[in-house]
Amino acid sequence: MIDVTRRRFMTGAALAIAVALERPRHVVAQPASAGPAAPQLIEDLVAANHILADQGVVDGYGHVSARHDRDPNRYLMSRSVAPELVTAADIMEYDLDSVPVDPRGRTSYLERFIHGEIYRARPDVHAIVHNHSPSVIPFGVSGVPLRPIYHMSAFLGEGAPVFEIRNAAGGATDMLVRTAALGKALAQTLGPRAVALMRGHGCVVVGANLPQAVFRSVYTEMNARLQAQAIALGGNNVTYLSPEEVDKVNNSVGGTILRPWELWKRKVRRSP
Amino acid sequence: MIDVTRRRFMTGAALAIAVALERPRHVVAQPASAGPAAPQLIEDLVAANHILADQGVVDGYGHVSARHDRDPNRYLMSRSVAPELVTAADIMEYDLDSVPVDPRGRTSYLERFIHGEIYRARPDVHAIVHNHSPSVIPFGVSGVPLRPIYHMSAFLGEGAPVFEIRNAAGGATDMLVRTAALGKALAQTLGPRAVALMRGHGCVVVGANLPQAVFRSVYTEMNARLQAQAIALGGNNVTYLSPEEVDKVNNSVGGTILRPWELWKRKVRRSP
Amino acid sequence: MIDVTRRRFMTGAALAIAVALERPRHVVAQPASAGPAAPQLIEDLVAANHILADQGVVDGYGHVSARHDRDPNRYLMSRSVAPELVTAADIMEYDLDSVPVDPRGRTSYLERFIHGEIYRARPDVHAIVHNHSPSVIPFGVSGVPLRPIYHMSAFLGEGAPVFEIRNAAGGATDMLVRTAALGKALAQTLGPRAVALMRGHGCVVVGANLPQAVFRSVYTEMNARLQAQAIALGGNNVTYLSPEEVDKVNNSVGGTILRPWELWKRKVRRSP
Amino acid sequence: MIDVTRRRFMTGAALAIAVALERPRHVVAQPASAGPAAPQLIEDLVAANHILADQGVVDGYGHVSARHDRDPNRYLMSRSVAPELVTAADIMEYDLDSVPVDPRGRTSYLERFIHGEIYRARPDVHAIVHNHSPSVIPFGVSGVPLRPIYHMSAFLGEGAPVFEIRNAAGGATDMLVRTAALGKALAQTLGPRAVALMRGHGCVVVGANLPQAVFRSVYTEMNARLQAQAIALGGNNVTYLSPEEVDKVNNSVGGTILRPWELWKRKVRRSP
Repeated sequence: MIDVTRRRFMTGAALAIAVALERPRHVVAQPASAGPAAPQLIEDLVAANHILADQGVVDGYGHVSARHDRDPNRYLMSRSVAPELVTAADIMEYDLDSVPVDPRGRTSYLERFIHGEIYRARPDVHAIVHNHSPSVIPFGVSGVPLRPIYHMSAFLGEGAPVFEIRNAAGGATDMLVRTAALGKALAQTLGPRAVALMRGHGCVVVGANLPQAVFRSVYTEMNARLQAQAIALGGNNVTYLSPEEVDKVNNSVGGTILRPWELWKRKVRRSP
Repeated sequence: MIDVTRRRFMTGAALAIAVALERPRHVVAQPASAGPAAPQLIEDLVAANHILADQGVVDGYGHVSARHDRDPNRYLMSRSVAPELVTAADIMEYDLDSVPVDPRGRTSYLERFIHGEIYRARPDVHAIVHNHSPSVIPFGVSGVPLRPIYHMSAFLGEGAPVFEIRNAAGGATDMLVRTAALGKALAQTLGPRAVALMRGHGCVVVGANLPQAVFRSVYTEMNARLQAQAIALGGNNVTYLSPEEVDKVNNSVGGTILRPWELWKRKVRRSP
Repeated sequence: MIDVTRRRFMTGAALAIAVALERPRHVVAQPASAGPAAPQLIEDLVAANHILADQGVVDGYGHVSARHDRDPNRYLMSRSVAPELVTAADIMEYDLDSVPVDPRGRTSYLERFIHGEIYRARPDVHAIVHNHSPSVIPFGVSGVPLRPIYHMSAFLGEGAPVFEIRNAAGGATDMLVRTAALGKALAQTLGPRAVALMRGHGCVVVGANLPQAVFRSVYTEMNARLQAQAIALGGNNVTYLSPEEVDKVNNSVGGTILRPWELWKRKVRRSP
Repeated sequence: MIDVTRRRFMTGAALAIAVALERPRHVVAQPASAGPAAPQLIEDLVAANHILADQGVVDGYGHVSARHDRDPNRYLMSRSVAPELVTAADIMEYDLDSVPVDPRGRTSYLERFIHGEIYRARPDVHAIVHNHSPSVIPFGVSGVPLRPIYHMSAFLGEGAPVFEIRNAAGGATDMLVRTAALGKALAQTLGPRAVALMRGHGCVVVGANLPQAVFRSVYTEMNARLQAQAIALGGNNVTYLSPEEVDKVNNSVGGTILRPWELWKRKVRRSP
């Protein structure tokens, strides 16, 4: 794993300097496992993968992770495979440097640093989704801010900033958050918010738990679709939720998230 | 139930005054049941839930109710669960204050007051749908009135006013119609019409029976979609149904509603 | 049947005059049957109903007919039921006045006059679809002409005129082509073309046979969708097929229609 | 086969001259087979047909081919049938003149010359898709260039030129690339790129192998959809991938193509 990690750090000219300034880690110990995660967490993580595909938030790409229930410095995420195909056996454990605990030859997502660095920066976050949510992409490239059009997406009230990887990397990249440095920069753009868009790429959505992160992913996509329609309808006079409404809704909608979550879980359980 | 009901009344600063002016009800008797509803009505209510999900009018949220066939002061609605998952065992009975007759620990939808207050205000109404119908949301926030683009949605000819909860509550809320006072205000906005939009939230659709309320819900969504497309096509010269056409269609389309209703019922019966 | 037919003629003020000028038919003989239609034709007619539903051209409404293979003065169409549910037992025979040969209590579509009057006016037509094809509706109300955006819809090259029922009836109607007089007016608007839009209602599509009428219905919907997108993209500089291209494509595409027809038939055979 | 080939060459006035200048080939030998293709290649070619249908890139029309693994002068493609219905038994072998090696009465796609001429012009290409990808059509007729909106479609960074068959043929045609001359002209428009649009028709997408050609087809459709939405959102300030980003992404995304390919294959295997 050491070689792989080092090679990732070497990618991108601007990053080379950062790497040169780092203390060289000639020996990286294999991270210790936090032990087996709660079976319910694994089951929910697998379900989250399937739900995101079923709801049209992810296609063959995208990934979802959960912080380990036994150790805040570990997180769980599938090996590199399309979310719809994830099974419990695909779930791997990572430390916050996004080094897998026990890879056993399984390939990791190139962009796992999104997860490790956000978990490091945001102790309140216990679940993260990265996706190429289709209706969201146009907002990431057009300068039109995503804003909460209805109560289901009040979590967008804090704003959904756009991560411009050109600035973070100091120049052109292959658009992938494939290093810890880029992961950190993305976490910084996200700040305390629920969602950050990634220009020409997709977005990242966080939550206090898997149902919330999935809920927010589904309704970020829906909000983007409806906001685009509202803009097309009538020009500039769209009424969004006010900051006060955002606060009040955020305090009350949370309690209802398990309703769609149960539905979504049932739907993916039905399919063969 | 008393505590729950009282607490609901306390929500919203503007409403506190109204509550203070009310005669305090220190003892609220458990409402009496009107007796078992007709099995066909229960079956249709369950079907209505599934149809609305199948037709894309509701997702994990939204609810549909029917006035009790034995007592106009009672209505029937599922416990708080996603419409697609509703079964006959989930159907509860409410009085027009939206107090459940026999909750047995089952959770009620927070917004049941939409139903109770419209049944109170509109004796002609025997079925009500509340939803977050996607294509309708943009009309609720953009100031563009929903108008009948074709004969299937002539019921929109009376207009579809927008309920602005900020005005009704005298300030910011969590957007939910979670009190009798807000339910009454919504019923007032609706007036004698078939549909009222709810800004930043969804809409409410009423009918003389379940097939009609479901029919109107499906074609409100469709009308919104088609009207948005027509506006995008050509600017301001969209020809809507004239008031005379609306009258004539409303007198004739009613007789055909069972045709799609039978189809929709068949479709949801097919699914596992 | 006499009473029903007479009552239809009485609908609409402007039509009353026309009716008054007609020679009264006090006795209308039950039309004679042309005998059993070819089983393959019945099978294709049932399939056409299912295909149109499966391809999103019809919903709970709409109908498709075929001219009888034994008698050009008779046509075949389902009783009044949603197209997706049509079975061979639902197929009824009509004369060109749209009087059913052997109703046996089965209800007819109110708008069967669309079919009878077009078969009368267009000896080349052997199959007719009436639908509320969603993407087509906006073109019927916005003054933007439907034009062939690609070779699959070259049949639109002759133009797709809009039937304005207000003019045909001399005032407001319930939008339904529920009389022979309105059917004749629609046939006149259609003229020698493949498609006529119906303002605030839907469209009618004709063909030399069922596969062609279904093909044209599917690609009228698709053309409307793509043309709307092209208009949204770039303004006025959309390049449509030229008249010469239309001629050449119409001479060559016909030979390929059985390719999608076979696919579509297979798809509806799969479903339970 | 000789007669058929000659007749194709005779189509189109402008081409007649070109043909007259050609050395007449009075005798065309039946091309020799390169022998049986690798079973995996046949299996992937069948899967590619089904995937393109499942992903909404092709409907009843469109075709996909693969260069023969034993002979670069032969390619494999289904007989003329809807892609979704293709089986291994439908796969035929062609030489680069698009003459079938062993037709056995099976009908060839009229536009097979697209494939033969591109394989001739592009030794790097081993798989080709021709389709009527819906969201792409509007870009082919509106003068708005298709540009890479996100990393998944960086392959569009080289541009997606529009093939104007009017110019290639020197006048109106039936829009079909039904001759070698038109195939050559299309190959010339394509040049070294991954995609060429065909005005009023569809597009052609090439790849180094079947997964890549299918991947590019799916993401060309998706890019077109998202780009149209981005344009509708905000006007002219859409940020596309820069040329440098395109280069870098093209070097890195390739390695991940098997992830969606595995998913897509699994999805079409599930269906009955």
